[in-house]
Amino acid sequence: MPSIVRNHGPHNKILLSALLLALFGWVPLASAAVAVPMDSTGPYRTVSHPENAPSGVDAGVGPSEWTHAYANPAHNAAFPVPDDAPEWIRNGVSWLFPEARAWPLANPPFGSKTYGAAEASVTQTQFYGNALGPSVVDGVVYAESDDMFAYAVNAKTGKLIWRASPVGNNLMGNPLVIGNTVYLSAGSVAFNFANVLRYAHNPSASARGLNVSFNGIYALNRSNGKLLWYFATPGETMATPAYDNNTLFIADGAGNAFGINATTGKQVWKTHVGGMDNMSSVTAYRHNIYFAMAIKPYLYCLNESNGHIVWKGTIPGASNTGIGDVSPAAADGVVVLDATTKPQANKKAMFSNVIRAFDAKTGAVLWTRNMGSGGKIPAFKGGVPMIHNNIVYVGNPVASTYQAYELKTGKLLWTWHVPTKVAAGAGRSAPTYYKGLLYITTGQYIFVVNPATGKELHQHHIGGQFGIESPVIVGGTVYLTNSWDWIMAIPLKTISHGS
Amino acid sequence: MPSIVRNHGPHNKILLSALLLALFGWVPLASAAVAVPMDSTGPYRTVSHPENAPSGVDAGVGPSEWTHAYANPAHNAAFPVPDDAPEWIRNGVSWLFPEARAWPLANPPFGSKTYGAAEASVTQTQFYGNALGPSVVDGVVYAESDDMFAYAVNAKTGKLIWRASPVGNNLMGNPLVIGNTVYLSAGSVAFNFANVLRYAHNPSASARGLNVSFNGIYALNRSNGKLLWYFATPGETMATPAYDNNTLFIADGAGNAFGINATTGKQVWKTHVGGMDNMSSVTAYRHNIYFAMAIKPYLYCLNESNGHIVWKGTIPGASNTGIGDVSPAAADGVVVLDATTKPQANKKAMFSNVIRAFDAKTGAVLWTRNMGSGGKIPAFKGGVPMIHNNIVYVGNPVASTYQAYELKTGKLLWTWHVPTKVAAGAGRSAPTYYKGLLYITTGQYIFVVNPATGKELHQHHIGGQFGIESPVIVGGTVYLTNSWDWIMAIPLKTISHGS
Repeated sequence: MPSIVRNHGPHNKILLSALLLALFGWVPLASAAVAVPMDSTGPYRTVSHPENAPSGVDAGVGPSEWTHAYANPAHNAAFPVPDDAPEWIRNGVSWLFPEARAWPLANPPFGSKTYGAAEASVTQTQFYGNALGPSVVDGVVYAESDDMFAYAVNAKTGKLIWRASPVGNNLMGNPLVIGNTVYLSAGSVAFNFANVLRYAHNPSASARGLNVSFNGIYALNRSNGKLLWYFATPGETMATPAYDNNTLFIADGAGNAFGINATTGKQVWKTHVGGMDNMSSVTAYRHNIYFAMAIKPYLYCLNESNGHIVWKGTIPGASNTGIGDVSPAAADGVVVLDATTKPQANKKAMFSNVIRAFDAKTGAVLWTRNMGSGGKIPAFKGGVPMIHNNIVYVGNPVASTYQAYELKTGKLLWTWHVPTKVAAGAGRSAPTYYKGLLYITTGQYIFVVNPATGKELHQHHIGGQFGIESPVIVGGTVYLTNSWDWIMAIPLKTISHGS
Repeated sequence: MPSIVRNHGPHNKILLSALLLALFGWVPLASAAVAVPMDSTGPYRTVSHPENAPSGVDAGVGPSEWTHAYANPAHNAAFPVPDDAPEWIRNGVSWLFPEARAWPLANPPFGSKTYGAAEASVTQTQFYGNALGPSVVDGVVYAESDDMFAYAVNAKTGKLIWRASPVGNNLMGNPLVIGNTVYLSAGSVAFNFANVLRYAHNPSASARGLNVSFNGIYALNRSNGKLLWYFATPGETMATPAYDNNTLFIADGAGNAFGINATTGKQVWKTHVGGMDNMSSVTAYRHNIYFAMAIKPYLYCLNESNGHIVWKGTIPGASNTGIGDVSPAAADGVVVLDATTKPQANKKAMFSNVIRAFDAKTGAVLWTRNMGSGGKIPAFKGGVPMIHNNIVYVGNPVASTYQAYELKTGKLLWTWHVPTKVAAGAGRSAPTYYKGLLYITTGQYIFVVNPATGKELHQHHIGGQFGIESPVIVGGTVYLTNSWDWIMAIPLKTISHGS
């Protein structure tokens, strides 16, 4: 795009841009189907390498769509492949893709000297790295990052297919992939000063992310990353939407829940429930949706088709940020959520995490368990639950443990103490159950744990840091993203056999 | 950089990165002199076009250094050129350079439908556009933007010389240029949740920008934009540092003021005064430095060499964000500052801006004037004062006026009401006095006003929006940046003769 433009100040009423357009037929900016602030030749332009896309059988590897954060309502991102699947996915591939703000995996957190390691690692996650794990669909790995870019990478070769940055905000979600569209959710952890003052005056009047850059859902063309449409929300949408029946469901930092037509991007319904959705990605299950809000600490069940509140539940004593972080898991007619509860008056600042199971249909409380306590930790304070075969596997970062509970009764089966020290606490990500083994990413490691006993079998050091990123297993390969802004593929056998 | 990496899981203790380095001698990341999180082949890499740099006489056009926001302690960014200066700068050039998140000048603010025009224009300024005007040194225009990039552009041709994004944060300052170094200051308007909670508990315990990405001063090689060093601060440094005697002076959002060696980037001194510096860029004047802090609403005078507090003053009734926004102007032994004061109990939410002059040496109050009131406006609530020839020229966005006061007595000489409606209020930027005319950028216009009478002479419509960006005049060209993320050159005659 020519940047030498000679125009000698037309009558001031003819706007400069209109003149440029008339004189040069030059549309200086984003040539996406829909206009967003972007120089179409600048660093945020969409870059596309169709030559790197998978073809033939490789383009059929893995699931054919991605409808939720952590892949599905039960949060188990595990995908066996058929025996005749390509050898590379069965045997496992290995590559490392540096995203835009990648930091060497061996390095301590950037900014540790100024913030201290615990806070610096959280900051690096929230503003530079990946908050959630990747999606893997039809031979392509999709990731969205707090470096403000989304990526499509060939699952076999690790080569970039496209990169896009339709909005100048952090992308904390897990890209949904349905049909020929990839959906991103934009939102930052931040508050502007006006909402700091509102919070001080009346927390319920404050909105997270309001006027902090621009928020909402951005829909991209799956083959080239071009922007198709965006649905703007007032509050942040750090959380990932859920998809069902041509509708996306999301809740924002300003207390709103939305149903959005997944094809047109038009609003289907909007329900204001109040509070703030921090990172509680929506779960769509049996025609209802579930998400949790902070400040007004409730787990909500809304009717998918009209957004009406079916029921709402809570976790007794949930701290003001606790309950809006975790995404509820749903399976076998049960919805499970955990949250950090405020320290009891008698106890020196010891936080306890509590897990509660609800009847998915009625909201009746089935059971409630105290998961264990510990000192204050920064940022995300819960563990994302995963349900497999009537058992809930869930971490607890205040105690740095993982536990297993019977889904229907809440009976505690085992507790595993994460052996390696994580400055900000270990135990945020949802485990992944695959072929009789439990894979857990936390701190600098991926661990293999016996799901029946909770005994650790292996640990594999990666470096960098894993926060709420869960491992995605497709056949013989584990796909990962992390806080140091890398997308990775590692052969499963490297991990499951110990190394 | 090859992203297909075949490594089949070495023993887990050998870190993946160390292996890559050993196997491929591949340093995957930023190859800057100092490491920051960045993929050296990715979108944030430094891009350099030495062929576009000025040469010969063109490389001598304009000032030879830039030591302050708004060019100097008096905030008058006006630079006549000698008669034998190149014709193009005397006659004036015209070009438009789209920065990374450029938005068509004719468009209303992006996000107006979600935020409303006033708030959306502020958000676009704070997260996409330029908060302050450019610097022009030796034939090059330097700008830093909230699109997270800094730019060096040829002042004659408008062609990119280099572009850099050493940190994933907004760059709200006015680049300083001294010797072969360009200094940027990184910081965002945002608070993270922990500091929202601290503010609600005790505003003085809260820090703006703490753990909101990474803050501080980033020093770049002036010829190619490569990072030389960075000085990290806990709080945001939205404001621009000042330079004097090989030292940079900056105050952050966590109540700290720093003296930093401009060559090495090492700390010379640090003084914690408390409160928050929002956008109050430091002024270095007669061996002292001046800046204002919000929350603990004071104007500080510190000794340049050791950071000791010489005096502190305030503006009666300053609202908690009011006094930390404006950069004090200094000239003729006087320091001037204005701030928004809280509405009097009797008055329906009417804010008044108050201006006060202090003896630069002793802090004695010389005079105080009420500049006029108006309704609540978003974000930056003051006007940046400019002193020329013993007169203070200053805007007042709550009343959308500009005024002139005698520097020594505070006598009000005139009040000019900005004729065009600006949703977020007009009157934030410092005027520029050049050859008997006053140039004022506000809203979508640049106005020409008679400095003696306050009568408007001409107006030139640009589009987009000007907030606190002041016009920089070098010979026959006005250099501008704006909230729609453009750098512009416009012949002065187009504006001063009316069009």
